[in-house]
Amino acid sequence: MLRMSSLFLRTLRDDPADAEVPSHKLLVRAGYIRRIAAGIYSWLPLGVITLRNVENIIREEMDKAGFQEVHFPALLPKEAYEATNRWEEYGPSLFRLQDRKGGDYLLGPTHEEMFTLMVKGEYSSYKDLPLTIYQIQNKFRDEARPRSGIIRGREFVMKDSYSFDLTDEGLGISYDKHRDAYITTFDRLHLKYNIVKAVSGAMGGSKSEEFLAPCPTGEDTYVLCPKCGFAANVEAMVTKVTPADASGVPALEELDTPNTPTIDSLVDVLNSKFGGGFTGASTLKNVLLMADKKAISVLVPGDREVDLKRLQAGLPGVEELRVFEVADFAKHPGLVKGYIGPQDAGKFGITVYADPRVAPGTSWVTGANKKDRHARNVVNGRDFTPDAYVEAAEIREGDSCPECSTAVVIDRAIEIGHIFQLGRKYADALGLTVLDQNGKSQVVTMGSYGIGVSRAVAAIAEQSYDEIGLVWPLEVAPAKVHIVATGKEDLPFDTALDIATKLEASGITVMLDDRRDPSAGVKFKDAELIGIPVIIVVGKSLAEGKIELRNRKSGEKSEVAVGDAISAVTTLIASLS
Amino acid sequence: MLRMSSLFLRTLRDDPADAEVPSHKLLVRAGYIRRIAAGIYSWLPLGVITLRNVENIIREEMDKAGFQEVHFPALLPKEAYEATNRWEEYGPSLFRLQDRKGGDYLLGPTHEEMFTLMVKGEYSSYKDLPLTIYQIQNKFRDEARPRSGIIRGREFVMKDSYSFDLTDEGLGISYDKHRDAYITTFDRLHLKYNIVKAVSGAMGGSKSEEFLAPCPTGEDTYVLCPKCGFAANVEAMVTKVTPADASGVPALEELDTPNTPTIDSLVDVLNSKFGGGFTGASTLKNVLLMADKKAISVLVPGDREVDLKRLQAGLPGVEELRVFEVADFAKHPGLVKGYIGPQDAGKFGITVYADPRVAPGTSWVTGANKKDRHARNVVNGRDFTPDAYVEAAEIREGDSCPECSTAVVIDRAIEIGHIFQLGRKYADALGLTVLDQNGKSQVVTMGSYGIGVSRAVAAIAEQSYDEIGLVWPLEVAPAKVHIVATGKEDLPFDTALDIATKLEASGITVMLDDRRDPSAGVKFKDAELIGIPVIIVVGKSLAEGKIELRNRKSGEKSEVAVGDAISAVTTLIASLS
Repeated sequence: MLRMSSLFLRTLRDDPADAEVPSHKLLVRAGYIRRIAAGIYSWLPLGVITLRNVENIIREEMDKAGFQEVHFPALLPKEAYEATNRWEEYGPSLFRLQDRKGGDYLLGPTHEEMFTLMVKGEYSSYKDLPLTIYQIQNKFRDEARPRSGIIRGREFVMKDSYSFDLTDEGLGISYDKHRDAYITTFDRLHLKYNIVKAVSGAMGGSKSEEFLAPCPTGEDTYVLCPKCGFAANVEAMVTKVTPADASGVPALEELDTPNTPTIDSLVDVLNSKFGGGFTGASTLKNVLLMADKKAISVLVPGDREVDLKRLQAGLPGVEELRVFEVADFAKHPGLVKGYIGPQDAGKFGITVYADPRVAPGTSWVTGANKKDRHARNVVNGRDFTPDAYVEAAEIREGDSCPECSTAVVIDRAIEIGHIFQLGRKYADALGLTVLDQNGKSQVVTMGSYGIGVSRAVAAIAEQSYDEIGLVWPLEVAPAKVHIVATGKEDLPFDTALDIATKLEASGITVMLDDRRDPSAGVKFKDAELIGIPVIIVVGKSLAEGKIELRNRKSGEKSEVAVGDAISAVTTLIASLS
Repeated sequence: MLRMSSLFLRTLRDDPADAEVPSHKLLVRAGYIRRIAAGIYSWLPLGVITLRNVENIIREEMDKAGFQEVHFPALLPKEAYEATNRWEEYGPSLFRLQDRKGGDYLLGPTHEEMFTLMVKGEYSSYKDLPLTIYQIQNKFRDEARPRSGIIRGREFVMKDSYSFDLTDEGLGISYDKHRDAYITTFDRLHLKYNIVKAVSGAMGGSKSEEFLAPCPTGEDTYVLCPKCGFAANVEAMVTKVTPADASGVPALEELDTPNTPTIDSLVDVLNSKFGGGFTGASTLKNVLLMADKKAISVLVPGDREVDLKRLQAGLPGVEELRVFEVADFAKHPGLVKGYIGPQDAGKFGITVYADPRVAPGTSWVTGANKKDRHARNVVNGRDFTPDAYVEAAEIREGDSCPECSTAVVIDRAIEIGHIFQLGRKYADALGLTVLDQNGKSQVVTMGSYGIGVSRAVAAIAEQSYDEIGLVWPLEVAPAKVHIVATGKEDLPFDTALDIATKLEASGITVMLDDRRDPSAGVKFKDAELIGIPVIIVVGKSLAEGKIELRNRKSGEKSEVAVGDAISAVTTLIASLS
């Protein structure tokens, strides 16, 4: 039983100055967490209980699925991370340190390498597989912009799992099993979420999905089809386009277009020259970029920007993308800035990528590769041919769903889980092989699966607060019932303690506000802020032998005879679970 | 239910090459832990369960005592540790690192500072006290010599608590409460231990005790009185001496003692000169040391060495002690190396400390401060006077118990817990005050209390293994019952599964060896190595409708009808708890 008379808890009246999102404000005000440094938080007693409730639900579902728990240190020697190149790739996000002998160590951001080596150390036969192992552990990432309290922290609790299979088919099965376990887990946590297609990126993996909890302050944007339910993060959104018939398009025509280095200025000139009908979408933008050390040109409709994250996701192996700078133009004197077209791409030795919207057969107005000159009726496949297609244009609300062509919406969310078919990248790099049925050595294929445990606490808060405080789901709340005793007499306090004791005896956890000093109003405010789902008030109505039962979420109140308190609470709780 | 057919476990036939102590060997061989780097270990599934069992027992006892759990990050900003000077004091044992902005951080070795600041942030009145809060968390210390597996690691699990009181009396009560909780905890863990007086050192504290688990490979030595039970670590051992009556001692006499720079050579010369009767104990050693930057002389009987750790414990504020080097002698040309005596100490400007064995009135042979000259009948109080007394001489088996004068024994042990009255050092440094009954600001007084959680797992192993493997206490074991099914038929496997299912249904955790390939012998060996307290063998005797029940610890075996298995196991388990 938690007793507020001695509980290490002080609620705050005001939002912390550095808090921007509701979960951060409320978790601090209600006394769940405290800030230690940027992105580094401590947990007060109510926070510890809530965090552990979330952790235990996750653990139970992992165990039920047959996954086995192990535990790694956070402090790891660099060698394995060098073998996979992540020691470098992580850049400044990795906390690196040296021990007293000058040995290099890191604080684990995730543990792919260590799990791979662990399995390598124990297993050697296909008979040992499949295997899925997991841990719940503190992770460290030196985020450039830690923010939103415990949503994006630098030390945080994560559940990370790794699956090991002999075959791609096996990996698919392990992946689906994990996906199912995540669904059950997040359902138990009462989180609303979408399972969103993600790109597997440069990791060599083949399939990846994110569990995103929609919330207006979320950092992640994703695409959702209101009709068929298709969901993808922006990087994974696919543009469905059909080739156009360009047979009736007149021949390419060069135009005098002085002083039109921008799309807007070009559209104005075109409309005045041809009496209207041109928009940004009529034009073709040639965006010049440096992809690592290689110059590339990316073709997108003139009314859309290039989304660098989407583009990068489509260019495996490219680590850095940046737009052309003056120095880059200087190295390509043939390029006429503001008047570039893909017609003569071959001359410049630059690889040309086209967004799928620049489909074969489509016709465009674009640069003529001469100062103050553009060309119209420039047809893809007739007047130019891209070297490759890649998703590059920004995604907008109203774009077509790739599954059912309905106009999609763009929503914000918090990433609470990520499941990922890694494939053989790590096993290859670290030599994890087993002997197959024929005694032949085979590289194992892996999946990795993560849930942000501390972040989930915040995500639940983000989805279930109201204007007066937190509203926890039953299984997550630091107690199931919050009993507030009021008044100056002993009777309400004795009665409250009696009810609390009986509830605890029947397995229902209780927080008892047995403080004598604060007013009833202060106690009610605290109860509302803290967000335990069932509130009992033992006070005024005790004169008629009654207590008040409140449903924190709905606000419903009812009076119940003291003798019926336990059964009434039990019924209310059953209705909430 | 743990099923060995799929359990992520491979036992090892051979001891790991780097293992010296039994717990290290067995925990690795039985598949509980694996080495990642020096002093850094991962936990396999059996290890995770065992560690969590220990952790939960500790947590339950802390909660029962009314202590409240909080949780801090491991990554901490340096500021608070600078304020208490521990950023420097920890020296190379502290893992230090910088974040991407160049901010200084450390990995928490203990959290006195953070707890002090946490309480400062929440509480402000004497009414809020007493308070005891704790956490169970990974700690980091860059040990010079990590060893003995998880006994002395560089990342390890620790339970650390801190108490906060207004008065010294309150601190005493909080301390005793913690002491009691530790007694219950270690009893539940089936650890044998002694509560040993420790010195509070330079921390400004007043009282300190260690919980030491006796074991032959332990790193800590401590003094134990076999009669009265007095126990103290060597630093805290007190020498009880009574002043001697020197009235009959002849006057100081200088002697020609050429070539006697050592005690042995001096004793030989004395015995040949005076016909015997002299031993090392007749002589007085003047040990010259540098205490930080100050030269000191320490007087001990000639047959005992100075124990630098004991000495340092008696010299609060001294951070480094080292014996005189050639350069130090050079700075004190008056000192005649090998022939120093305390008679002319004043001349050299060196502070003289005497061990209590050099009691007032005792008479000695010592150096005459002249080359090749000693003096006899040198009486403390007549011929020299020490500036101060300090425990400095080494402690030996057979020394007198300070409580009852019985000859003590010296034993080895593992430190599993430490309780400590810190006093006001941290609260002073960090400004933790509350208003007292009179509205006056008072500095809070603190205690700190630690249990090595991962180390406790090893300590239990050290105290309860035998020549064939681990032997866990019931509450700590990864399962209560280990069922081994043997043979080639399905029947024993089906019966074993049936028994396992029934046991689990009645709340008894089971590890089921349902592997088909290994021989019965291999399975028995594994069961013995793993150390689950109750072993059931379902095999040969099944033909007569029987199973075999084994007590892992006593080795007792009995045959039981299949139908009586559950009740027989329940009875056996009850006898073990």
